[in-house]
Amino acid sequence: MTVIYVAIACGLIAVLYGFVTGRQVLSASAGNARMQDIAAAVQEGARAYLGRQYRTIAIVGAVVAILVWVFLDRMGAPISAVGFLLGAVLSGATGFIGMNVSVKANVRTAEAARTSLQGGLTMAFRAGAITGMLVAGLGLLSIALFFWYLIGPAGHLPDDRIVIDALVALAFGASLISIFARLGGGIFTKAADVGADLVGKVEAGIPEDDPRNPATIADNVGDNVGDCAGMAADLFETYVVTLGVTMVSIALLVTTSSEQLLALMGLPLIVGGVCIITSIIGTYMVRLGKGQSIMGALYKGFWTSVVLAIPAIYFATAWTLGDMNAVIGGEAFLDAPLDGFAAEPVAEAAGFTGMGLFWCMMIGLALTGALVWITEYYTGTNYRPVKSIARASETGHGTNVIQGLAVSLESPALPTIVISVAVIAAYQIAGVIGVAFGATAMLALAGMVVALDAYGPVTDNAGGIAEMADLDPEVRARTDALDAVGNTTKAVTKGYAIGSAALAALVLFGAYTTDLTEFFPDLAVDFSLSNPYVIVGLLLGALLPFSFGAFGMTAVGRAAGSVVEDVRAQFRDNPGIMEGTSRPNYARTVDLVTRAAIKEMIVPSLLPVLAPILVYFVITAVAGQAEGFAALGALLLGVIVSGLFVAISMTSGGGAWDNAKKYIEDGNHGGKGSEAHKAAVTGDTVGDPYKDTAGPAVNPMIKITNIVALLLLAALAHGAA
Amino acid sequence: MTVIYVAIACGLIAVLYGFVTGRQVLSASAGNARMQDIAAAVQEGARAYLGRQYRTIAIVGAVVAILVWVFLDRMGAPISAVGFLLGAVLSGATGFIGMNVSVKANVRTAEAARTSLQGGLTMAFRAGAITGMLVAGLGLLSIALFFWYLIGPAGHLPDDRIVIDALVALAFGASLISIFARLGGGIFTKAADVGADLVGKVEAGIPEDDPRNPATIADNVGDNVGDCAGMAADLFETYVVTLGVTMVSIALLVTTSSEQLLALMGLPLIVGGVCIITSIIGTYMVRLGKGQSIMGALYKGFWTSVVLAIPAIYFATAWTLGDMNAVIGGEAFLDAPLDGFAAEPVAEAAGFTGMGLFWCMMIGLALTGALVWITEYYTGTNYRPVKSIARASETGHGTNVIQGLAVSLESPALPTIVISVAVIAAYQIAGVIGVAFGATAMLALAGMVVALDAYGPVTDNAGGIAEMADLDPEVRARTDALDAVGNTTKAVTKGYAIGSAALAALVLFGAYTTDLTEFFPDLAVDFSLSNPYVIVGLLLGALLPFSFGAFGMTAVGRAAGSVVEDVRAQFRDNPGIMEGTSRPNYARTVDLVTRAAIKEMIVPSLLPVLAPILVYFVITAVAGQAEGFAALGALLLGVIVSGLFVAISMTSGGGAWDNAKKYIEDGNHGGKGSEAHKAAVTGDTVGDPYKDTAGPAVNPMIKITNIVALLLLAALAHGAA
Repeated sequence: MTVIYVAIACGLIAVLYGFVTGRQVLSASAGNARMQDIAAAVQEGARAYLGRQYRTIAIVGAVVAILVWVFLDRMGAPISAVGFLLGAVLSGATGFIGMNVSVKANVRTAEAARTSLQGGLTMAFRAGAITGMLVAGLGLLSIALFFWYLIGPAGHLPDDRIVIDALVALAFGASLISIFARLGGGIFTKAADVGADLVGKVEAGIPEDDPRNPATIADNVGDNVGDCAGMAADLFETYVVTLGVTMVSIALLVTTSSEQLLALMGLPLIVGGVCIITSIIGTYMVRLGKGQSIMGALYKGFWTSVVLAIPAIYFATAWTLGDMNAVIGGEAFLDAPLDGFAAEPVAEAAGFTGMGLFWCMMIGLALTGALVWITEYYTGTNYRPVKSIARASETGHGTNVIQGLAVSLESPALPTIVISVAVIAAYQIAGVIGVAFGATAMLALAGMVVALDAYGPVTDNAGGIAEMADLDPEVRARTDALDAVGNTTKAVTKGYAIGSAALAALVLFGAYTTDLTEFFPDLAVDFSLSNPYVIVGLLLGALLPFSFGAFGMTAVGRAAGSVVEDVRAQFRDNPGIMEGTSRPNYARTVDLVTRAAIKEMIVPSLLPVLAPILVYFVITAVAGQAEGFAALGALLLGVIVSGLFVAISMTSGGGAWDNAKKYIEDGNHGGKGSEAHKAAVTGDTVGDPYKDTAGPAVNPMIKITNIVALLLLAALAHGAA
Repeated sequence: MTVIYVAIACGLIAVLYGFVTGRQVLSASAGNARMQDIAAAVQEGARAYLGRQYRTIAIVGAVVAILVWVFLDRMGAPISAVGFLLGAVLSGATGFIGMNVSVKANVRTAEAARTSLQGGLTMAFRAGAITGMLVAGLGLLSIALFFWYLIGPAGHLPDDRIVIDALVALAFGASLISIFARLGGGIFTKAADVGADLVGKVEAGIPEDDPRNPATIADNVGDNVGDCAGMAADLFETYVVTLGVTMVSIALLVTTSSEQLLALMGLPLIVGGVCIITSIIGTYMVRLGKGQSIMGALYKGFWTSVVLAIPAIYFATAWTLGDMNAVIGGEAFLDAPLDGFAAEPVAEAAGFTGMGLFWCMMIGLALTGALVWITEYYTGTNYRPVKSIARASETGHGTNVIQGLAVSLESPALPTIVISVAVIAAYQIAGVIGVAFGATAMLALAGMVVALDAYGPVTDNAGGIAEMADLDPEVRARTDALDAVGNTTKAVTKGYAIGSAALAALVLFGAYTTDLTEFFPDLAVDFSLSNPYVIVGLLLGALLPFSFGAFGMTAVGRAAGSVVEDVRAQFRDNPGIMEGTSRPNYARTVDLVTRAAIKEMIVPSLLPVLAPILVYFVITAVAGQAEGFAALGALLLGVIVSGLFVAISMTSGGGAWDNAKKYIEDGNHGGKGSEAHKAAVTGDTVGDPYKDTAGPAVNPMIKITNIVALLLLAALAHGAA
C-alpha cells in the first residue's frame, strides 16, 4: 500500500505544480485594453462552446452510466458505474482546465512577446506545462485513489473481478468523453480555421487574424477547444487507459502471491509518479541557448525528463519489487533465472523478473524517443519531406497535394518498424506484461509531452491577438517563430499517442482473450487467421478508421462551408465591416460553428461504440457465439492495424503541409504571395482536418472499440451467470 | 479430360473473336492524313516505351526464372521455370496486344465519331472487346493447356506437388510482369498527363491536347501504355491467379477419388470457358437506345453476359460433376446431404455439393454486380459523392481536395461489407473451396469487364486526336461524352479486380497454411491473433500498400516535374512552337518520360517480392522458424486488409475527382473557366496518380506477396527434403 500512497503523493505534487504555476501565469500582465477585449471574446466563445459540448456529452454519459450500472454492476452497488463517471468527469475536467489555462495564457504570451522571444516562450511553455502536469497528475490520482478505495476501504482483492471491471469502466469513461472532445473540438477548430481562411485570405484578400473577418474569433476559440481541451482530454484518456490496462492485465495474467500481485499492480502507478517528478524538473530546463533555437529549448526539457526517468524507474522498480532478479509470476516457473533477456519467448503465464520489466520500460522510453525523432523528421522544416512539398508547390496546387499525400503515405513506415521491434523485444523479455510496461513507461512521460503540445495553441492564439490588437509586427514575428515549432510538437504528441495505442491495444486484446477463456471456458474460439470470421473481423475493424476519417473530413468541409456563407452574409449586410467602421458579429459565427460541431460529432463518436456490439451480434446470429467472439476479437486488431496507418499518415502529412507553407513564408521558393505560396496554402487547408480532426481522433477511437468489447464480454458473462 | 478440351475450345473462340473483330476494326477508315500522322506518332511512342519496358523486365524475369529453376525445380526438369516464363510472356503479350489494338482503334474511333455517337461507341467498344476477349482467352488457354500438358503428356496426377508448384509458378510469372506493367505504365501515363496539364493548361494557358504542347503526344502514349497495356497485363494476371489458385486449393484441400478431383479441377476452366461465350454474346448487345445513354448501352452488354452466365454456369457444373447433390470430397462426409446451404460452416476438408458450388459462383456474380453498382455510385456524375466534390469546388482548391479525400475515405465501406457478406456466405456453403469458386465466377466475366475498361482509353485518345487534327468541335463533344463514361468503367474494373483479390488472397492464405502443415508437419505454427509475431506480421503487411502508394505518388510527382522542365525548355528555346510555326519535339518528351517511368518502377515493384522473404528470415533469426512462418502468414493477410482500403479509396476517389471536373465542365457550378473549374482541375490532378498509378498497382502487389510466400515455402521445403 505504501507504493500507492507514494503514487498518490506524486499526483498531488503535479496538481500543486499546476496551482503554483497557474498563479505565476495569472500574475503576469494581460496587456492593454484592446488585447484584453479580444482575449475576453475568445474566452467567452470557448467557454460557451465547451459548456454546450459538455451538456450534450452529459446526456450520452448519463445513459451509458445507467447501462454500465444495469449490465455490469447488475443493478447492485454501482462500483463500475462510479468508475465510469469518475473517468468521464475527470476527462472532461482536464479538457476544461486545459482550455482555461490556454485562454488566460494566450494574451499574456502576446504581452510577454512584446519584450523578448524568451519571455513569450516561458509564458507559453508554462501554460503548456500546467496542462501537462494536470493531465498526468489527475490521471494518476484517478486510478490510484480508485484502486486504493477498492482494495482498501471496499475490501476487495486486487484481482477480484469487481476491481477489474471497475478499472475498465474507469478507462471507458475517460475514452468516451475524450472521443467526443477530440472530435467535436477538432471539427470546431478546423471548420473555423478553414472557413476563416477561405473567406478571408482567399476571397476578401485580408490577412489571417484580421479583425474585420467575423470568423477570426471563432478561429481562435477553436485553438482552445480543439487543440487544448480536446487534446488534453485525449491524453488523459491515453494515460488512464494505458496504466489501467497494465494493471488489469497483471490481475488477469499473473499468478503469484497476493503481496507480489499488489506490488506488481502498484508498479505502473509509482512509475507514473516518479516520472511526473522528472517531468517537473524537465520543465525548468526549457530555455533558449545561444543559438536561440526554440526546438532546442523544448528538447532540453524533454530529454532531461527522459534521462532522469531512467534511474527513477530503476529505483522505483527495485523499491517496489525488492529483488530485481527474482522470477515473478507463472504457475510454471522457468528453469533458469532470467537476467532480463530470455532466449525464448515468455508465455503470458510464465515468469519474468523485475530487471526484465525495467528493460521493457526502457524499450518504452526508447520508442518514445524514436517516435519523437521520426515525427520531427517528417514535419520539421529542415528535412526532405517538408522541403519536397515546398518544392512541389512551385508547379502548382496539384503537385503540392500529390507530394503531400506521398509524404503522408510514406510517414507510417518507420514508426511501424520501430513499434514492431519494440513489441517483439518487450514480448521476448516478459510477454504481454512486458508490452504493457513498455506502454506504461511511454505514458509516464505524458506530463512533459502534453506540455510541449499545449504550448502550441497558446502561441498560435497569442499571434492572433497580436494581429488583432495591432501590436508591433515584431511581436507577431516572435509568436510566429514560436508557433512554427508548435506544429511539430503537436504532431509529435499525436504520433506518441497512437504509438502507445498500438501497444495498449495489443495488451487489451490479451485481456480480451483471457477474459474470454475465463468467462466462457467451454467455448472453443478460433482466433486463427485461417478462420474466415477472423478475416471478416479484421476487414470490418480495418474499415472503421477509414469511415471515421471520412466522417471527420466531411464534417469539417460542411461546417467550413456554413462559416463561409455566414461571413459572406455579414460582409454583404454590413459594408462597414470591410471599411473598418463597424464591428463584425463575432458571436454569431462562434455560435454557428458551435452548433455545427456538436451536431457533427455525435454519429462518428458512436461508431466505435456500436460497431463492436453490432458485429458480435450479427456474426453470432449467423454462425454462433464462438465465431461471434472470434470476429469481434479480430475487429479489435483490425482497428489498430489500419488505425495506426490512418492516424500517423494524417497527422504527419498534415503537419508537413503546414510547415511547408511556413517554410515558403520564411522566404523560400518565392515567399509570401508567390504562386508557390498559394499552392502551399491549399495544401495547408487540406492538411488541417487531416491533422487536427480525423487523425488524432483515431487514437481514442481505437481504445474505445477495445474497451467496449471487454465490457460487452463482461456484461454477457454476468448476464449468463 | 473432355472438360479441359471444351475449355481450350472456348479459349480458342475468344482468340478467334479477337482476330475477326480486329479485322473489322482495321478495315474501317483511319481518317485524313493529319489524323494518321498523329496516330502514327502515338503508336511509335507507345511501341518504343513498351519495347524498352519489356527489355528491362526481361532481365528481371530471366533472373527470377533461373531462381525458380534452381530453388523450385531443384535444377531438374524446368517445369516450374517454364510455367513462370509462360505466365510472364503471355502477361506481357496481352499488354502488347491491348496497346496495339488501342493505338489502331483510337484514330478510327475519331473518324467514326465524325459520323455519329453510335459509330464512335461501336468502334471504341469493339477495340475494348478485342482486348477483353484476348485477356480472358489467353488466360484460359495458358492454364488449360499447361494443366493438360502436365496431367496428359507429362503423366502427372492432378494433385502431384509438381503440378501445384507449376501452376503457382505460372501465376507468379503473370503477377511479376503485371506489377511492372501496371506501375511502369501508370507512372508513364500520369507523369505525362500531369506534366502536360501543368505546363499547358496552367502555365501556357492552352487547351488540353493542343498540338503546340510538346507533352501532348506523351500524354496520348500514356493512355495506351498505362490504361491499356498495363491494365490488360493486370487483368490477365488476376484471371490466371484466380483460376490457378482455385485449382491449387482443390488439389491441396479436397480428398476424393482421382476422377472427381480431375473433374473438380476442370470446373474453373469450363466455367471460364462458357463465360467467354456469354461475354461474346454480350458484346453484340452494346448499342445506344432511345435515351442515347452511353452507360446504358454498355450496361446492356454487361448484364446480358451476367444473366446468360447463370444458366451457363449451372449446366457447365452439372455436366462436369454429374449429380449436383452428391457430396464431394472430405475424409469425413457430412451426415446429411446438403442442398446448397449448410446450416453449419463446412470445414476445408469436409464435403460440399455441386449445387453448393453453383451457389458460391452465384455469390461471385452477385458480388461483381454489387461492386459495379457501388463503384458507379461513387464515381458517376449522377450521385451524391461526385456532386459533393463539384459543389465543394466553389469554395476553392482546398475544399475540393478535402471533399475528395472524404469521398475517397468513405468509398471502401460498402465494398468491404458486401465482400464480407460474400466471403461468409460462400464459406458457409463450401468452405475455402466455396470462396475460391466465388472468385472464379467473378473472374469468368473478365472478358466483358476488360472490354468496358479498355474502351475508355481508346475514346480518350480519339478525343486527343480530334483536338490535335483540328476536327469539328462536335466530334470532340462526342468523344468527350464517350470518355466521361470511360472514367466510371475504368474505376469499375479496379474495384472488381481488388474485390476478387480479397477473395483470392483468402484462398491463397488457405493454400499457405495447408502447404505449411504438409511441408513442415512437426512445426507448430501459431496463427492465433494473440501471438505477437502474428500482430507484427499484420502490421508490416498492412504497411506495404502504404509504402507502395507513397513510392507511386512520389514517382509521378518527380517524373511530372521533369516533363514540366522539358516543355518549358522547348518553349524557351523554340519560340516558334507557341506561334504555331514550328513543330515541337514530341519524341524528346516521350523519351524522357520513358526513361523516368522505367527508372521509377523498379524499386516499388520489388518491394512485394522482397518484403515477405525479408520478414521471414528476420523473424526466423530472432524467434525461430515457427514464428517466422506465423509472421509471414500474417503479413499476407495484413497486405490484403490494408490493400483493399488503399486500392478502393484511391481508385474510387480518383474517379470521383475526375468526374467532378467533367460535371463542372458540363456547365454546372459556373462551368469551364470558372474558379470552381480551376479547383476541380486541381482535384483531378491529385486524383490522377491515385487512380491510375498507385491504386490499381496494389492489386498485383497483393497477389505477388502471397505467391512469393507460397514459393518460399516450397523452396524451403524442397531445400530441406
